[in-house]
Amino acid sequence: RIMRPDDANIAGNVHGGTILKMIEEAGAIISTRHCNSQAGEPCVAALARVERTDFLSPMCIGEVANVSAEITYTSRHSVEVQVNVMSENILTGAKKVTNKATLWYVPLSLKNVNKVLEVPPIQYARKEQEDEGKKRYEEQKLDRLETKQRNGDVILPVINPEPHTVGYSQSSLIHLVGPSDCTLLGFVHGGVTMKLMDEVAGIVAARHCKTNIVTASVDAINFHEKIKKGCVITVSGRMTFTSNKSMEIEVFVDADPFVDEPRERYRAVSAFFTYVSLSKEGKPLPVPQLLTETEDEKRRFEEGKGRYLQTKAKRQAQMQQSAQQ
Amino acid sequence: RIMRPDDANIAGNVHGGTILKMIEEAGAIISTRHCNSQAGEPCVAALARVERTDFLSPMCIGEVANVSAEITYTSRHSVEVQVNVMSENILTGAKKVTNKATLWYVPLSLKNVNKVLEVPPIQYARKEQEDEGKKRYEEQKLDRLETKQRNGDVILPVINPEPHTVGYSQSSLIHLVGPSDCTLLGFVHGGVTMKLMDEVAGIVAARHCKTNIVTASVDAINFHEKIKKGCVITVSGRMTFTSNKSMEIEVFVDADPFVDEPRERYRAVSAFFTYVSLSKEGKPLPVPQLLTETEDEKRRFEEGKGRYLQTKAKRQAQMQQSAQQ
Amino acid sequence: RIMRPDDANIAGNVHGGTILKMIEEAGAIISTRHCNSQAGEPCVAALARVERTDFLSPMCIGEVANVSAEITYTSRHSVEVQVNVMSENILTGAKKVTNKATLWYVPLSLKNVNKVLEVPPIQYARKEQEDEGKKRYEEQKLDRLETKQRNGDVILPVINPEPHTVGYSQSSLIHLVGPSDCTLLGFVHGGVTMKLMDEVAGIVAARHCKTNIVTASVDAINFHEKIKKGCVITVSGRMTFTSNKSMEIEVFVDADPFVDEPRERYRAVSAFFTYVSLSKEGKPLPVPQLLTETEDEKRRFEEGKGRYLQTKAKRQAQMQQSAQQ
Repeated sequence: RIMRPDDANIAGNVHGGTILKMIEEAGAIISTRHCNSQAGEPCVAALARVERTDFLSPMCIGEVANVSAEITYTSRHSVEVQVNVMSENILTGAKKVTNKATLWYVPLSLKNVNKVLEVPPIQYARKEQEDEGKKRYEEQKLDRLETKQRNGDVILPVINPEPHTVGYSQSSLIHLVGPSDCTLLGFVHGGVTMKLMDEVAGIVAARHCKTNIVTASVDAINFHEKIKKGCVITVSGRMTFTSNKSMEIEVFVDADPFVDEPRERYRAVSAFFTYVSLSKEGKPLPVPQLLTETEDEKRRFEEGKGRYLQTKAKRQAQMQQSAQQ
Repeated sequence: RIMRPDDANIAGNVHGGTILKMIEEAGAIISTRHCNSQAGEPCVAALARVERTDFLSPMCIGEVANVSAEITYTSRHSVEVQVNVMSENILTGAKKVTNKATLWYVPLSLKNVNKVLEVPPIQYARKEQEDEGKKRYEEQKLDRLETKQRNGDVILPVINPEPHTVGYSQSSLIHLVGPSDCTLLGFVHGGVTMKLMDEVAGIVAARHCKTNIVTASVDAINFHEKIKKGCVITVSGRMTFTSNKSMEIEVFVDADPFVDEPRERYRAVSAFFTYVSLSKEGKPLPVPQLLTETEDEKRRFEEGKGRYLQTKAKRQAQMQQSAQQ
Repeated sequence: RIMRPDDANIAGNVHGGTILKMIEEAGAIISTRHCNSQAGEPCVAALARVERTDFLSPMCIGEVANVSAEITYTSRHSVEVQVNVMSENILTGAKKVTNKATLWYVPLSLKNVNKVLEVPPIQYARKEQEDEGKKRYEEQKLDRLETKQRNGDVILPVINPEPHTVGYSQSSLIHLVGPSDCTLLGFVHGGVTMKLMDEVAGIVAARHCKTNIVTASVDAINFHEKIKKGCVITVSGRMTFTSNKSMEIEVFVDADPFVDEPRERYRAVSAFFTYVSLSKEGKPLPVPQLLTETEDEKRRFEEGKGRYLQTKAKRQAQMQQSAQQ
C-alpha cells in the first residue's frame, strides 16, 4: 500500500509502528490460512512473539510498501513466519529492503478461545531447515519464560524532573480498545499493540533529544496475555540506556478490563525499542547522555549497555563472516 | 488486507466503497509505476474513468481481500488497467471473485500538474489485443464527452416529502479534503471520492427500502476535474429508478475550493450506483416502487429503465454465449 | 454520515466526542466560507469557544447523523455558529434531536497565522436578533477571560489510590499531532481536541463506576491557544463532583511543542464534562459517591455542586416557562 502523510513523522519518515502493523497483519493472514488448511476445528492465529527486528532503511511518504510472508517452521502448537518488507519508489522504480521480521503465532479455537489447537506440519526442502527451525523454536521458548519472570516492574511518575533524566522523558498513553483494533475473536491484533508501543517509545525519544527521531530496531517482543475488546490499555515508556548515537526505551503494556469483568489490571506485553536521532539531511546525530539517578536506573542502564554491546558484537561478527565469504 | 468491522454495514457485508477504494489504489500504483518506467519527467497517474463494475458476490468481515492489477492497453496519454478482487475466507480456504474492474489513468507531471505526459507503450502478445484495446479506448472517450455535457443538474431539498418519493430518500454529505485523502500532487485519490459516493448512495437506498442493502454495480464513473486539498466536497444522491429487486441511485460530487482560490463550485464527478435489498438470510428482497412526481423525475425513471433493460439484455446475451460454448 | 462501530462504545452508544467533532467540522466549514465571501485576504476560521452543550438523546451504531449549521451573529472579529444534530434511524425513519451547539470562530489569515482578519457582517431579519447576539457575544467574552485566569492547575499522579477517590479514576493520554488532525494552517482542529477530551473523560467516568457510561453534557470550552502540528498533547482528566446519577469530570489539554521550538509546555484548553451511567436497558443508574481527601478536592467538589445546582435550576425554570406557554 502507498504510504500516506498520517503514516509518517514531520520529516516524512514512516513510523516504525506502521511497518510493524503491516508485518503483523501479513503474518496473521498466512498463519491463520495455514492452520485452517486441514479439516478440523476452525481457528485464528494469535501473535505470541516477534523476534528482534532491525529497520534497515527508512521508508518515506509516497513510497509503496511490498510485504511478503512465508512459513518457515511449525512446532506442534506454533507457527514461525518470516516477513519481508521492501519499499518501492514508484517514480524512480528504486527498491530497498526495509525490514526482515520473524514472528511466532499460536492457533486459538474459534469456539473456545482458551483452547490451543494443533498446527498442520509443513514440508521442509532439506532436513537441516527443520533442525535449524527447531533450534530457533527452543531458544524463543526459553526467552519467553525468562521475560515473563522479570515483568513486574512499574513506571512511577516523577514531579518536576531535570532534563535528560529518566523521569523527564518518560511518557504513557491510554487507549480504549475498539472493534477495529480486534480480530474475529474479539482480541487486540498484535500489530495494533506494537504500533501504540512505537508511538510511546518515539515520544520518549523525542522528549529526550528534541530532534527528528526514527526507530532503528525492536528487541524481541513477547505477548504474554491476550487483551480483550473494551479494555483500557496503558502503554508506558521510559529510557533505559543511551550510547553516543542511540537511545534504548523500555515499553510496557498493561490491560485494565474495567467493564463487566472482575479481573485486576495485568501486564500484557513488554519490549525494548532503539531509536536514533537524525539531522535534516538524514545523518545520525549525537544523543544527549541519559542522567541516571536511582540505583534501579543505574542497573537498567548497565543492562541496556550489555544488550547494546552484544548486538554490536553480533553485527561485527556477521560483517566479518560475509567479508570472508 | 483483512476486512474490519468499520469496512462493513451492520449485517457484516463489506461496503462497495471500501472495495472500490482498494481497486483504485492498486490501479494507481501499477499505472504510476508504468508511466515512470522510462527515463523522463516524473509523474503521478490520475484516475480519469472507471468502467461499469459489477459486485459479483458480497465480501464479509474477517475475509481477506486479494487485489491484483494488470495493464491491458496504453494510448498515447492514457493507461487501461484491469483489477481483479478475490475474497478469501482464511478459515475455510474458500475463494470467490468479488469484482473485475477496468480503470483509465492519465499521467500528470509532478512539476506541472496541468501537463499530461506521454505513456510508454506496452507489448501485446497478439495483434487482436491491441485492436480490442483501441476499440475500448475510443468508446470510453466518446462516453466521457457525453457525460460532461449532461452534467449540470442539481439536487434541491424537498420539505416534508412522502415515503418512496425521490425527495424522501435523497441525501447529501459534505467532507473537508484533508492531507491523507490526497496523492503526492495534493489532489484527492479517486478511490476516496468513490468511497464517499458509495456511502451516500447506500444511505439513499436504505432510506427508501429500510432494509439491509448492498452495492450490486456501479456504472461507468468519469472524473471530469481534479479536486484539491482544502476543498469542501458535497456528495449528493437521489434515486432515479427501481425495478422489482433493484434501485438505481445517481450521485454527484461538487467541489468548493472555498479558500485561496477565486473559483466557483464545480461538478467534479457523477455516476449511477445500483443497490439490492437483502433479507437476513442474504436473499434479494422486493423493493418498494419509486414514486415519481415531476416531469424530470419521470424522464429520469425512463432513462434508468433503459439502462436497466440494456444491462439485463447484455447479461442474457453473455449467458447464452457461455451456454453455447 | 453513518455511525460506525468505531464511533461507539461497547453498548453501541456513539461517543459524545465523535458528535462534537462532526459539529466542529460543520462550524469550521460554514464560518470559513463566510469569512472568505468578500474579496480580501484568504483566511481559515479557528475555533475559539464552544458554549455549554447538552446531549439530549443517545445516538447508536447504524444511525445517520444529519448536521446543519447556520451563522447567527458576527462581531468585528468573530462569528457565532449554531449547529444542530439530528439522528435518523434509516430503517424506521425515526428522527430525534441529539444536540444543539453554539460555537465561536475567529478568522486567521492564511498568509500570517497570527493576524486576525475582519468578519463580513451578516444581515439580521429583525433588530432584536442583532441585540441578543451582541449580548451573547459580550457574555462569552467575559467568561473566556475568567477561565484563562483560573487555568494554572495541574493533575498530579497518586500512588496506590483507594477506589472511588479522585486519584483512583484520574487518567491521561498523550497524542502526537499528525497531519490529518490539522487545518490548512497546520493547527489542530478544535473538533479533534474535543474528541480526545471526551475520550479521557469517558475513561475517568468508567473507571469510577465500572459500568457503561455516556456523555450527558459539556460545559463551555474555551480554546486559549492554538496547537501546532508535531506537538505532543497531554489530555488529563479528574473527577470533581458526583450527584446521585451524574459525574462531573474536569479535563485539561496541555501542548508540548517539543521539536524545533524553544517554547515551554502550555495549557491550551480546559472544560467540564458530565457523564451518566446506564444500565443494559439504557436506564440511568446510581453512581458511587466521589471520596474527596484533600482540601482542594473538597473545594472542587463544592464548586462542582454549585454548577450542578445552577444547571438544575435553569432547566426547571425553562420547563416551567414552556409549561406556561
